[in-house]
Amino acid sequence: MGEAQRDHYLLAINAGSSSLKFAVFRQIDLVQTAGGAVNRIGQSDSRLTIDGGDIGPVSSATHAEAVEHALAWIDRAFGIGSLVAIGHRIVHGGAAYREHCVVDDAVIAELERIVDYAPEHLPSEIAIVSLCRARFPNVPQIACFDTVFHRDMPLVARQLSIPRRFAEVGVERYGFHGLSCSYVLEVLNRLDPDRARGRVVLAHIGNGVSLTAVRAGRSIDTTMGFTPAAGVPMGTRSGDIDPGLVRYLTKTERLDADAFDHLVNHQSGLLGMSEISADVRILLDAETQDRRAAEALGVYCYRIRQAIGALAASLGGLDALVFTGGVGENAAVIRERVCAELEFLGIALDPTSNQANAITISTDTARVGVHVIPTDEEAVIAAAVIRLLKQETFAS
Amino acid sequence: MGEAQRDHYLLAINAGSSSLKFAVFRQIDLVQTAGGAVNRIGQSDSRLTIDGGDIGPVSSATHAEAVEHALAWIDRAFGIGSLVAIGHRIVHGGAAYREHCVVDDAVIAELERIVDYAPEHLPSEIAIVSLCRARFPNVPQIACFDTVFHRDMPLVARQLSIPRRFAEVGVERYGFHGLSCSYVLEVLNRLDPDRARGRVVLAHIGNGVSLTAVRAGRSIDTTMGFTPAAGVPMGTRSGDIDPGLVRYLTKTERLDADAFDHLVNHQSGLLGMSEISADVRILLDAETQDRRAAEALGVYCYRIRQAIGALAASLGGLDALVFTGGVGENAAVIRERVCAELEFLGIALDPTSNQANAITISTDTARVGVHVIPTDEEAVIAAAVIRLLKQETFAS
Repeated sequence: MGEAQRDHYLLAINAGSSSLKFAVFRQIDLVQTAGGAVNRIGQSDSRLTIDGGDIGPVSSATHAEAVEHALAWIDRAFGIGSLVAIGHRIVHGGAAYREHCVVDDAVIAELERIVDYAPEHLPSEIAIVSLCRARFPNVPQIACFDTVFHRDMPLVARQLSIPRRFAEVGVERYGFHGLSCSYVLEVLNRLDPDRARGRVVLAHIGNGVSLTAVRAGRSIDTTMGFTPAAGVPMGTRSGDIDPGLVRYLTKTERLDADAFDHLVNHQSGLLGMSEISADVRILLDAETQDRRAAEALGVYCYRIRQAIGALAASLGGLDALVFTGGVGENAAVIRERVCAELEFLGIALDPTSNQANAITISTDTARVGVHVIPTDEEAVIAAAVIRLLKQETFAS
Repeated sequence: MGEAQRDHYLLAINAGSSSLKFAVFRQIDLVQTAGGAVNRIGQSDSRLTIDGGDIGPVSSATHAEAVEHALAWIDRAFGIGSLVAIGHRIVHGGAAYREHCVVDDAVIAELERIVDYAPEHLPSEIAIVSLCRARFPNVPQIACFDTVFHRDMPLVARQLSIPRRFAEVGVERYGFHGLSCSYVLEVLNRLDPDRARGRVVLAHIGNGVSLTAVRAGRSIDTTMGFTPAAGVPMGTRSGDIDPGLVRYLTKTERLDADAFDHLVNHQSGLLGMSEISADVRILLDAETQDRRAAEALGVYCYRIRQAIGALAASLGGLDALVFTGGVGENAAVIRERVCAELEFLGIALDPTSNQANAITISTDTARVGVHVIPTDEEAVIAAAVIRLLKQETFAS
């Protein structure tokens, strides 16, 4: 650990379905020194932003191309040789990965084997990791799986109600948003350690929405399932569905399996119910004039509220509730509607704190602590990278 | 209303997926004078039972054939001419029927139009009603829909999270077990009128399982959906599923839509998870020796418990919980496991009362009244028949 390390950096790459977030951390103290994003990947108006400021248009037909723009910017700002490790958010680790890990050929092969577990996300993630391995053969690449946080869920939460033979080939509840869960749980642990060790529901409400029940610091159930399309309604995903719909829709609408998959992943949820937008802000603006927006938001908040009730039943009650994700962090009215009628769980919001997106939004006397904790998946990636680099060093 | 009416009877017909229950009621006082069943329809060992006693083997390849056996027995016992009306349980009334009704050609045409809403049930039910109309052209046939109890659910419960255009063609949450809900709610109303008018969850746990939230006497949400395959895991049905599974299973298992439908309706739930049986009694006997039985029962009870939590969130708390259906009425250990960890809702079971299948199984001091109420769908059919006959009389 010498003087020279002040110039060494870690890179965290967080690929979403049509965006790429990245963050550069100083290795010695894990302070984030720059964060950027390439948005609207695959569209003609894709742009690079750094620390919230627009850098300009970029040509990003694919996630790999977006990564090239990020690397070029990092090279100009820090010198690409200063990168000592790169951490990648990987949506699905399947049954094999119970911990984040250093990527080698076997990891790539396993991800390719389970690519059908997450056909919307894994192909571009594999492409990014492979590109970085090829470009920087001596820089460790670390895979940080969104499923790891949930891998110790009890069997009763993991087992699906379909024939057992599917579980034997890895079809079970995995759950996602695990990096986000890790982050907000750690913050909650500093904020209110007693309740954090008790019965907690983490509500990640962004484009994807999932709710996770945590007891004594461990995930015991979560609303997403084998895929991130499960659980509650989201921006464009339906969440759990009546299985009897499959036959009806394929018969009356003549949808094939791919079209059905597109329907439940990209044309459902808020977008499908409103016919207007998947964006909560747009729907909140529209809801007084357009009942379709009001109805879509109604179902959205209602099903999230029910999920909190269901997970409270898993936990045997509730000590803390945390909102995170783009909507969870910023939409006070959504939090207010979700928490309506939940007084019986001990939830009571302070309207002023809630309106201000304060870190604590429950009243002083409420039995349940309710919090708004902005998530930081890149910070979790950076911490995992450091931990794994140390393990590598000790092991060698 | 003369002396002669003592010899007049109503017949209630309740067709299940592989059984037919029927009951004969004296018109004047609605006392049930005989009840029977044809079991194992479509199998070589189909049998007729009357008031629990075995009458003997019958040839019942179809539900219509089973009805013929029932009618023949009624003719011998009461004289077929004594039947003044026949009421039929119909699983699905679609969007058109908000009330039970007298069957005419238009009703049959509407049921045929929506036959794909319930392809497992409606064809045999239409066949039975049509047979009775043809045999007894002057006897009113009354359709009693399992969906009617839920038709006033608020939109937030009815709207599915798929594209809006499907709602416009009738694809929404309907809910089932409505006749059973009507019956047990009426009993609860006599037993504990204050709580019955409050926040109630009705848990119908039989071959099919559904839970319904009732507030002020009205259904406000229910776990079954557009079809009876939705909600919690059942004997052979999966309940709600991760929509992402559809693409994966059709791709890896090459299931087509019909095979998928068969999988989620007939090979999932307790049967699929255990690989042993769909029968709770058999699994309870097996669970100490066979972990597959224990695991299947574990998921079953756990997901029912979560549904109670979810519906409590819909209701804003809970005043009463009612168990009914074959399992709900008779399996004390299932009720005990479902209610474990629900103390936070105010639920506390009295072990002795629960073991005895007593009508009240909560402790004297518990905030929530928990009850076991044997359901009687045929009684609800008979009451609906009388009501509609009176309306017809007044209208004519």
